[in-house]
Amino acid sequence: MAKIALLPVLVSFMLLSVSTTTALTQDFCVADLVRGDTPAGYLCRLRATVVAADFYYDGLAKPGILIEPFNTSLASAFVQQYPAVNGLGISASRVDIRAGGVVPLHTHPAGTEILYVVQGAIVAGFISSNDNKVYTKRLNKGDLFLFPQGLLHFQYNAGNTTAVAFAAYSSPNPGLQILDYALFGNNLPTSYVMEGTFLAEAEVRRLKALFGGSG
Amino acid sequence: MAKIALLPVLVSFMLLSVSTTTALTQDFCVADLVRGDTPAGYLCRLRATVVAADFYYDGLAKPGILIEPFNTSLASAFVQQYPAVNGLGISASRVDIRAGGVVPLHTHPAGTEILYVVQGAIVAGFISSNDNKVYTKRLNKGDLFLFPQGLLHFQYNAGNTTAVAFAAYSSPNPGLQILDYALFGNNLPTSYVMEGTFLAEAEVRRLKALFGGSG
Amino acid sequence: MAKIALLPVLVSFMLLSVSTTTALTQDFCVADLVRGDTPAGYLCRLRATVVAADFYYDGLAKPGILIEPFNTSLASAFVQQYPAVNGLGISASRVDIRAGGVVPLHTHPAGTEILYVVQGAIVAGFISSNDNKVYTKRLNKGDLFLFPQGLLHFQYNAGNTTAVAFAAYSSPNPGLQILDYALFGNNLPTSYVMEGTFLAEAEVRRLKALFGGSG
Amino acid sequence: MAKIALLPVLVSFMLLSVSTTTALTQDFCVADLVRGDTPAGYLCRLRATVVAADFYYDGLAKPGILIEPFNTSLASAFVQQYPAVNGLGISASRVDIRAGGVVPLHTHPAGTEILYVVQGAIVAGFISSNDNKVYTKRLNKGDLFLFPQGLLHFQYNAGNTTAVAFAAYSSPNPGLQILDYALFGNNLPTSYVMEGTFLAEAEVRRLKALFGGSG
Amino acid sequence: MAKIALLPVLVSFMLLSVSTTTALTQDFCVADLVRGDTPAGYLCRLRATVVAADFYYDGLAKPGILIEPFNTSLASAFVQQYPAVNGLGISASRVDIRAGGVVPLHTHPAGTEILYVVQGAIVAGFISSNDNKVYTKRLNKGDLFLFPQGLLHFQYNAGNTTAVAFAAYSSPNPGLQILDYALFGNNLPTSYVMEGTFLAEAEVRRLKALFGGSG
Amino acid sequence: MAKIALLPVLVSFMLLSVSTTTALTQDFCVADLVRGDTPAGYLCRLRATVVAADFYYDGLAKPGILIEPFNTSLASAFVQQYPAVNGLGISASRVDIRAGGVVPLHTHPAGTEILYVVQGAIVAGFISSNDNKVYTKRLNKGDLFLFPQGLLHFQYNAGNTTAVAFAAYSSPNPGLQILDYALFGNNLPTSYVMEGTFLAEAEVRRLKALFGGSG
Repeated sequence: MAKIALLPVLVSFMLLSVSTTTALTQDFCVADLVRGDTPAGYLCRLRATVVAADFYYDGLAKPGILIEPFNTSLASAFVQQYPAVNGLGISASRVDIRAGGVVPLHTHPAGTEILYVVQGAIVAGFISSNDNKVYTKRLNKGDLFLFPQGLLHFQYNAGNTTAVAFAAYSSPNPGLQILDYALFGNNLPTSYVMEGTFLAEAEVRRLKALFGGSG
Repeated sequence: MAKIALLPVLVSFMLLSVSTTTALTQDFCVADLVRGDTPAGYLCRLRATVVAADFYYDGLAKPGILIEPFNTSLASAFVQQYPAVNGLGISASRVDIRAGGVVPLHTHPAGTEILYVVQGAIVAGFISSNDNKVYTKRLNKGDLFLFPQGLLHFQYNAGNTTAVAFAAYSSPNPGLQILDYALFGNNLPTSYVMEGTFLAEAEVRRLKALFGGSG
Repeated sequence: MAKIALLPVLVSFMLLSVSTTTALTQDFCVADLVRGDTPAGYLCRLRATVVAADFYYDGLAKPGILIEPFNTSLASAFVQQYPAVNGLGISASRVDIRAGGVVPLHTHPAGTEILYVVQGAIVAGFISSNDNKVYTKRLNKGDLFLFPQGLLHFQYNAGNTTAVAFAAYSSPNPGLQILDYALFGNNLPTSYVMEGTFLAEAEVRRLKALFGGSG
Repeated sequence: MAKIALLPVLVSFMLLSVSTTTALTQDFCVADLVRGDTPAGYLCRLRATVVAADFYYDGLAKPGILIEPFNTSLASAFVQQYPAVNGLGISASRVDIRAGGVVPLHTHPAGTEILYVVQGAIVAGFISSNDNKVYTKRLNKGDLFLFPQGLLHFQYNAGNTTAVAFAAYSSPNPGLQILDYALFGNNLPTSYVMEGTFLAEAEVRRLKALFGGSG
Repeated sequence: MAKIALLPVLVSFMLLSVSTTTALTQDFCVADLVRGDTPAGYLCRLRATVVAADFYYDGLAKPGILIEPFNTSLASAFVQQYPAVNGLGISASRVDIRAGGVVPLHTHPAGTEILYVVQGAIVAGFISSNDNKVYTKRLNKGDLFLFPQGLLHFQYNAGNTTAVAFAAYSSPNPGLQILDYALFGNNLPTSYVMEGTFLAEAEVRRLKALFGGSG
Repeated sequence: MAKIALLPVLVSFMLLSVSTTTALTQDFCVADLVRGDTPAGYLCRLRATVVAADFYYDGLAKPGILIEPFNTSLASAFVQQYPAVNGLGISASRVDIRAGGVVPLHTHPAGTEILYVVQGAIVAGFISSNDNKVYTKRLNKGDLFLFPQGLLHFQYNAGNTTAVAFAAYSSPNPGLQILDYALFGNNLPTSYVMEGTFLAEAEVRRLKALFGGSG
């Protein structure tokens, strides 16, 4: 059988391109961040424009931007930074926790996190919602820990040198709600914070000053 | 640490806005009813346009429009009326059943319903598909009942005063197929209805007249 | 056609009972709380034992147990209390907030909440994770508000009399993580809480005493 | 490399069998109908007991049992008859509609149906819930039609010879609620049926007699 | 009650059309192949343009295009050919395997397949990923076989006449990765194929010639 | 308020333990590998037996077992090795590819893979099913690449020293079907392999000898 005869057959066989102007995806749906999103993720980029480089991301190859109060750097490969993960149920990030640094209490409202320690030592923990039980563990290089979806969790550097960890999430967009910014980094009235947490007024005002809140 | 220094860091930290013209949602996806829908719900409104009022709905604060043949009023807070529920797996409605009134046999093809009696007394029931078994119960103020997804169910006022109930659904758009309108409120030919239900011709014609059907 | 001839045909037609000892469910799966659960919910009770009363729950007909520090009562109709919701994507609760009372900051890790005010006035709000923006609104009788899955939210009584609200959730088991109990109601070491939140030691110790924590 | 050396490596490489007494499934989960079900389907049979014959089913090779009032035979390959479909999102059935026969109005609460005409001619239709619009079409051998999940639909033999169709469903257990049996084939009180449908009492009693109902 | 009075009530009761220019779908979402897709499927066509013919497809009524090397014809009713299945979790295809023909080793990355033999005899089989076990069976007219999602499988004509089968899938777009085209029908370098499969160079070059590959 | 008074209230408030002998999970469902699995994962271990160590795994801290023909080591943290991931939509593995080594062509039928290079250089690629297009890229330390669910993919060491990568998957049990073992490592008859792949008989027999197959 001649190679030349096979090609048109193959095209018919695949039966996928409806028109040349709208060659749509099937195996993947690289996010078109401009055209908008839906509850299931972003609209897909036209397939003809997708290349191997779309599945590649080097933004975790070095530390992200330093968050000063935490002495920690964070770089994310969520769908906004890494559009190839759109609709595929996974994403990633990298955290560099300096000596004395911390990833403060936070949640990912939309995903479970698996943490892999690349360098250094970390204490990681989460708090269950059933009974407020604390699950905490010291991790060394190569160790894994798990933070189930939506639960408050934290990490501390447990050594004297920068610790580096790679995290993967069960969602292209797991979200990130850092407790300090949620409580003290916005215009939520001080009286609301006090009633909602039982914190003293002076403490609320002190932390609002620290995290940029007003009200 | 100065508050002023924190703000740009915070912006970088969140890493979410790809461009100022397309600030996309993450925690929620308020429906843009104009731009169209997908199997997973409507496209999201631009995040910058979403305000607290979008999460608020007062359309269930009073009875909905009276459906005369049923002597019952219905008001819905589905995604078309309450776009904030888009993609969030929930919606609601309110029913006011006058004395002698009824919510006739119907299904919600796409959601389970939980019913909470706010006032009065109601008899509620559903019919299982496994074995056509009837599950029925008398409900008073404060009681709950459950109608599993897709099953025929009904409610009657079991007292002498208007009964009011709040219902929530496991879908932003559970659908509503009322048996009488489906059989008798359209142009489904009388012969089809007869063959498909074994009802007598005169009865089909009588109910077509009542519910606005032709054919 | 005789009625008596139809019955065995009907049984064959339905084709559902594999054996008399294991008549399994189809339309619903009422939780068997004793035999254990799975990621998708509890094992189902044998269908033959399920009756109409299983779909009925009167535990929200009066206020739940008072939580003293919050001056609020809570009653839940989650799968553990109301096994019929197992696998059906919905559950409910009732909250009675006394004058001056509050539902303090908390999350539901596994579900969106829709709140319906039955009596009184409430201020409700949530904090987005994207940008820590606060969405808050005053609600009166009959009004709805929405708390998207996993986000910190709160409610306050905004009047002088007890406010009552009915809530439904997009999960049979949405979870409940109350910030004060998660931070101060367990054995999470004081130093961890301090590092993870930037709260002062004295404040952490004061709140640990209030919410029953140690360490 | 010697074949003999590879085998133990292969076993380690796969890393799947935790113990010889509980070799669990991964690619499939053939239903163990005896041990019970969950909201996501039945427990899996032990993998070691699964053989090729489990994925094979010949129950659709000939007509099912005749349902006399409908002049139609039905054979199902749902999870109870064909346990291999458990958890795999698909099932099937075969219908043989004799001349003059009908598949009366019914719903599948848990699945969409795709119909493929194997022999003869059929008129098929469904009624939407949005607006009670009727979608109906005449089908010949080889044609497909679609019944979206949960909507009332029907089929009639449109010719003079037996029509045969193969149907597939988007669920291992789509359910089947036949309107006549749901309304008239159980102990739902005649007064309830009348109020819930607006049918006349005599008609309800006539059909209860036909379909085996009481009350 | 007059029929004329009922109509406007009915419209209000349904409460679904937000505006006449954007009458959106609810029960179904017929794909608008031109406007693009999302991880959950294509955008929906405007409901007002959807007619009964959209749910009908006659493309499987006769054999599809012959794939010469396989001596087999394939016709698909996936979402691109049959837009009504969009979002409904199902699709179909028809295969005609001539005497001596084969459906070569392939996977459907996104769906389980159920196969129904319409004519002739077929040997069908799949290979599990757990332990590489082969499950294979001879099928005659009317028999079913199942290929779990993502696993390598094949079919051979087991008789002397053309065999015809109807297949349904648990996805509107199950995908199709034919091993020979994936390995030998593209520009994957010969050295990569050799390293990735341990095939000899001459064999790779022979098959690249046969299936139209380069490199 | 006294601490001692709060504790019983807290217990009531949480409302989760149905009985002391069956304290069931909510936030997580650590797999009980002995009691069996379901389509949604394994049954959960009793909550009272779950400790922090269950969320910890050190099996990826060093290379896994060497697969000689590939010159590569693999260690997995799927649900069978790391039961805490059960139901949480994520898992992980580690691969050590020696100089000249390869991860041969394979698929994960049930999950997308995200690859993070920890050390060395790797060429990674996958083949789409739509059009057999090859997407391939050279990766260095810190780079990410993505393999969409169910597609054939591979990795080669692109340097002179051992490359190490950490992979995460969008499923607790993504599966692994290595092409060579699926085709040549079992009792699939040589004639079937030949017909299903168009490989020559001698080549099939050579590879069956290499990968331990018979038939």
